[in-house]
Amino acid sequence: MSISSTLLENAVDQLATLPGIGRRTAMRLALDLLRREPEEVARFSEAVRKMRDEVRYCDVCCNISDEPKCAICRDPNRDASLVCVVEDIRDVIAIENTRQFKGLYHVLGGVISPMDGIGPDDLHTRELMDRVQQGGIRETVLALGGTLEGDTTGFYLNRKLNEHGILVTTIARGISVGAELDQADELTLGRSIADRKPYELGVRR
Amino acid sequence: MSISSTLLENAVDQLATLPGIGRRTAMRLALDLLRREPEEVARFSEAVRKMRDEVRYCDVCCNISDEPKCAICRDPNRDASLVCVVEDIRDVIAIENTRQFKGLYHVLGGVISPMDGIGPDDLHTRELMDRVQQGGIRETVLALGGTLEGDTTGFYLNRKLNEHGILVTTIARGISVGAELDQADELTLGRSIADRKPYELGVRR
Repeated sequence: MSISSTLLENAVDQLATLPGIGRRTAMRLALDLLRREPEEVARFSEAVRKMRDEVRYCDVCCNISDEPKCAICRDPNRDASLVCVVEDIRDVIAIENTRQFKGLYHVLGGVISPMDGIGPDDLHTRELMDRVQQGGIRETVLALGGTLEGDTTGFYLNRKLNEHGILVTTIARGISVGAELDQADELTLGRSIADRKPYELGVRR
Repeated sequence: MSISSTLLENAVDQLATLPGIGRRTAMRLALDLLRREPEEVARFSEAVRKMRDEVRYCDVCCNISDEPKCAICRDPNRDASLVCVVEDIRDVIAIENTRQFKGLYHVLGGVISPMDGIGPDDLHTRELMDRVQQGGIRETVLALGGTLEGDTTGFYLNRKLNEHGILVTTIARGISVGAELDQADELTLGRSIADRKPYELGVRR
């Protein structure tokens, strides 16, 4: 693809660095931006730059926050002895939307991935251990993705947290609510049978 | 989706204004940008702003160009009496890649779309008419998308260009090279039969 303008080419190159955006899509995005008013594009550009330059993280849970301590950690009605460990803010939002969890969070900022050169020290694991050492935490729930990286991270954290004599739990894996058995993959179905539990009516609140 | 940071929320809002990017994808893009070095994000942001602020268009064909006259219009080996009218720079790139066209282009910058409030005056139609009035153009090829908007634009331009007694042609519509007939849609197949032409061996160069 030969582009007649280096200005456009640079913008396409940069947009194509975004995950899931190829050069063809990047060109479509660039042409869309070109059709807008310069002020509108300046606002776009500024919002992205400002986010990266001025971003802050909660001193307690490492969640993204405009204040030194995030709204969840400041909430006195939440159970501070129960901490849910997640990969990133999207998981916090997803769990909050369920309204099933009343503890606090700890945001790792990623998962261990040797392939991408990401080790425990590149994540907020030190901050988690500091929280645990300060005491007051009874249980940590590992709510990590069901991928190889998620499992590796869970394995590492479980060993570390056990050294401090803390109850380590993990979210249940199994068949989705409302799903057909014959459409589930073998691993999930196998896990749901191995992890079977006493029958009860309805969903526990 | 409640986000704990207005900085992040602003960036997600802006990214979600891009075509084909929903809020969930915008969040993924924002988190990817957050993981990068601030200088890298500044380069990203600057490339986008600079493109919009400093973009120039070719004085002749309205294609995006860093110079007052684009490389295609400057090329003395091209046939200046043949002008291909296209929607945007992506179409120029696509046609150039075929190496089948040796004329010049005229980039409209969009198509007529009453639904989006885009009329002929919002496109570079005046510049096209000015070129035609200056003389020297023998044929204009309308290479517009096969959509309702493309057809509307073609209809409008054909009427306008005919007033100047210029040959107006349009690219052939039909079954793709290498495609199966039973997988083509009815409209395309119908058009390819109506527009049938004398049999010849091989592809004409």
